[in-house]
Amino acid sequence: MSVFPYEIKATDGEARSGVLKTPRGDIRTPAFMPVGTAATVKALYMDQVKSTGADIILGNTYHLMLRPTAERVKRLGGLHKFSTWQGPILTDSGGFQVWSLSKLRKMTEHGVTFQSHIDGSKHELTPERSIEIQADLLGADISMQLDECTNFPCPEAEARASMEMSLRWGQRSKDAFGTRDSQALFGIVQGSVFPELRRASAEGLRKIGFDGYAIGGLAVGEGIETMCDVLDFTVPHLPTERPRYLMGVGKPIDLVRSVARGVDMFDCVLPTRSGRHGQAWSDYGPLNVKRAEFIDDENPINADLDCPASRDYSLAYHNHLFKSGEYLSAMLLSWHNIAYFEDLMARIRDSITRGDYNNFCKDFESKWEQGEAARLERSAAAN
Amino acid sequence: MSVFPYEIKATDGEARSGVLKTPRGDIRTPAFMPVGTAATVKALYMDQVKSTGADIILGNTYHLMLRPTAERVKRLGGLHKFSTWQGPILTDSGGFQVWSLSKLRKMTEHGVTFQSHIDGSKHELTPERSIEIQADLLGADISMQLDECTNFPCPEAEARASMEMSLRWGQRSKDAFGTRDSQALFGIVQGSVFPELRRASAEGLRKIGFDGYAIGGLAVGEGIETMCDVLDFTVPHLPTERPRYLMGVGKPIDLVRSVARGVDMFDCVLPTRSGRHGQAWSDYGPLNVKRAEFIDDENPINADLDCPASRDYSLAYHNHLFKSGEYLSAMLLSWHNIAYFEDLMARIRDSITRGDYNNFCKDFESKWEQGEAARLERSAAAN
Repeated sequence: MSVFPYEIKATDGEARSGVLKTPRGDIRTPAFMPVGTAATVKALYMDQVKSTGADIILGNTYHLMLRPTAERVKRLGGLHKFSTWQGPILTDSGGFQVWSLSKLRKMTEHGVTFQSHIDGSKHELTPERSIEIQADLLGADISMQLDECTNFPCPEAEARASMEMSLRWGQRSKDAFGTRDSQALFGIVQGSVFPELRRASAEGLRKIGFDGYAIGGLAVGEGIETMCDVLDFTVPHLPTERPRYLMGVGKPIDLVRSVARGVDMFDCVLPTRSGRHGQAWSDYGPLNVKRAEFIDDENPINADLDCPASRDYSLAYHNHLFKSGEYLSAMLLSWHNIAYFEDLMARIRDSITRGDYNNFCKDFESKWEQGEAARLERSAAAN
Repeated sequence: MSVFPYEIKATDGEARSGVLKTPRGDIRTPAFMPVGTAATVKALYMDQVKSTGADIILGNTYHLMLRPTAERVKRLGGLHKFSTWQGPILTDSGGFQVWSLSKLRKMTEHGVTFQSHIDGSKHELTPERSIEIQADLLGADISMQLDECTNFPCPEAEARASMEMSLRWGQRSKDAFGTRDSQALFGIVQGSVFPELRRASAEGLRKIGFDGYAIGGLAVGEGIETMCDVLDFTVPHLPTERPRYLMGVGKPIDLVRSVARGVDMFDCVLPTRSGRHGQAWSDYGPLNVKRAEFIDDENPINADLDCPASRDYSLAYHNHLFKSGEYLSAMLLSWHNIAYFEDLMARIRDSITRGDYNNFCKDFESKWEQGEAARLERSAAAN
C-alpha cells in the first residue's frame, strides 16, 4: 500500500488515465511535468506554470545540490517555499546530470564522485546521500532512486552489470528512504534495449517495492521506434496499480505513443528549451517564429489555446521579439509551449476517458506527419 | 489650446501634480514612463507594467524604424496593437539614439543620415520623417520634435548653433505635424549648461507652440548638481500650463529633486537595465542581490510594495536566480524596479497634494544619504 493512492479512472487499450493523490494536490495522469531545474521553470512565473494545468513540476538534484546547495534550501524552508511552487515536486536523483554534465566522474559500487561543472568543486552522490538531499533537504514529494545511466548503444554484458548495480542501489535507496507519511519513492527500470534485462530490472524493483516505477535510459539517441519497442516489452512487467514514469521524454509524438503503451508520467526540458530558441510547438510539430514568412503575420500561435502567450500576440510580434533578442520572446514561447504540452495531456486524458484514444492517436499521427512533410518540403526548397 | 488638456491639481513650491488627459487614458503627473525600446518593456509583460501604476510608456523611434520598421508596424495596426500596450505611448524622435548608437552619422541642416547599428544599412532622419514615423506610422500619442544632441561639455558657440538648428527643426516638426485630433507634439529645449541659450530655446519653442516642453541634453555626464542648476534656470521660461518632460532621467534622487524644480514627466531605462544586472532599487539606492550577505536572507526586497516581485520572493532566491543566470532574475528585478519607480511617483504626487513635498524631499534625501554612506562603507571594507 503506497502513501500516495493512485486511482486509475479509465483505461483504453494499454493507455490509462487516473489521479495520483498527494498531500500537496492531485496529479492527473497522463501527466507532463515541466522541468524546474534550478528552482525555476525557466522564463516562467510559477502561477503561469500552474495556470497551464501543470499539477507537478520537476526539480534537479544535481543543480540544486551544487547551487544554492541542498542544505541551504533546507535552511530556507525547503524547495517548495524557496521556489514558491506549492504543488507536488518530483526530484530526480542527480545521476543523469552527473552522467551528462559533470567532469571527472568516478563510479564505484558505493556511489559516484564528480566535479561540479560550475566551479570544479568535488562532490559525492550515493543512493543514501541522494535520498537525504531529495527527501530530507529539498523536501521532494516524490524522490527517485539513484541509478546508473548507461551509454547508448551499450554491450549487453555492460548493460546487465549496470542494471544490477542500479537494482542494488534501488534497495539501498529504499532502505535509506524507509517509510514516510507524505513522501513517495520511485524506482527506475534500466537494462538498455535488452528485453531480458528490462524484465529482470522491473521484477527486481517490484520485489523491493516502490510507490512508482520509472523507465530510465531512454531518449538517449535510440530513436522513437526503439523507444516504443522497449516500452512494449518493459511495461507489461510493471505493476498496473502504480504510476509509470518515462524519464526525459519528450516530443509530443513521443508522449502520444508512450501513453498508448501504458505510460502515466513524463518530464522534459523540450518546451522551455525550444521556447528559448524561437520554437513554438503544436500538433504539427515545432514552428520557428523567426521564419521570414511570419514577419507580417497577424495570426497568433494558436487562437484556440487558453493561454495569453498562445492567443494574444501576433506571429509578427514573436518574430520581431526573437530577432531583437528580447527576453519576452523566450518568456512567451516557453509559456505557450508549456501550455501546449499541458493541453495535449488534457486532450489525451479526455480521449482515454471517452474510450477514443485509438482515434486520437491516428488523428495526431496524421497531423504530425503533415507537419513533418511540410518541414521536409521547406528544407528541400531552401537547399 | 492643446488637444490633451492638462489639469494641474496641486502645487507645492515649484512642484506640481496633475493629470494629462489623452484619448487612451489619463497620465497622472509627476509621471515616470517605463521605456519600451523595441515594442516591449524588457523582461516584463504589459499587464505587469500597467499593474505597477504606469500610465504611459515610451517607444524608441530609432530602434523601431530599423526593426521591424515603422512601415511594418503601421501595416500591423500601429504600435499599440503590435506591442499590446493599450495606454498612451510617447515616442522619442530618434535623434538621441542616432547620436549614441549609430555609426557614420552625417548631420546637415536638412537632417541626419546614419548607418544602422544592427546591419549597417543607411537611413535618414529629418524633422519631417521623424514626425511621419512617430505620428503616422507608429501612431504615437505624443511625438517629440527631432533635435540635435550636443556633447557634454560643449563650447557655447557650438551649443548655440546646435540649439538654433534644433529650434528650426522644431518649427519644421510642428509644420509637418500640423493639427491633429488625438495626438500631441512636444518641443525640446536645448542649450547645454548655458542659461541664456536655455532661455532662448524655451522662448523660441513657446513661440512655435507645443503641447508639452521637454528638457533635453541632460543626464549626459554633467552630474546632478549641474542638472539641477540647468532646471533652475530653464523651467521658469516654460509655460506653467503645459507638461514639462525631463528626458532620460533618472535615478530616484534625480526624480525627487527635479520634481521640486517643476518637472512633470520622466523616462529612463535605469529600472529595467539595472534589473537585468542584479540591482533592486529603493529609497536607499540600489541593492545588489548578488551580494554574499543575501545568500541566506529570507526577507523579500520590499514587503510593503504592492508587487509580487517585491514581496513574494526571498532575497536568497533572488541571489540564487541571479547567480544561476536565470531569466526569472531579470524578470523579477525589472518588475520590482518599475513597481518601485511608479510607487515613488505615487508617493511624490500624494505629498504634493498634501502640500508636504518639502518634508518628503528632506526625508528622501536623508534615506538616500544613509544608503550612499552604507555603500561607501562596504566599498571601503572591500578594499
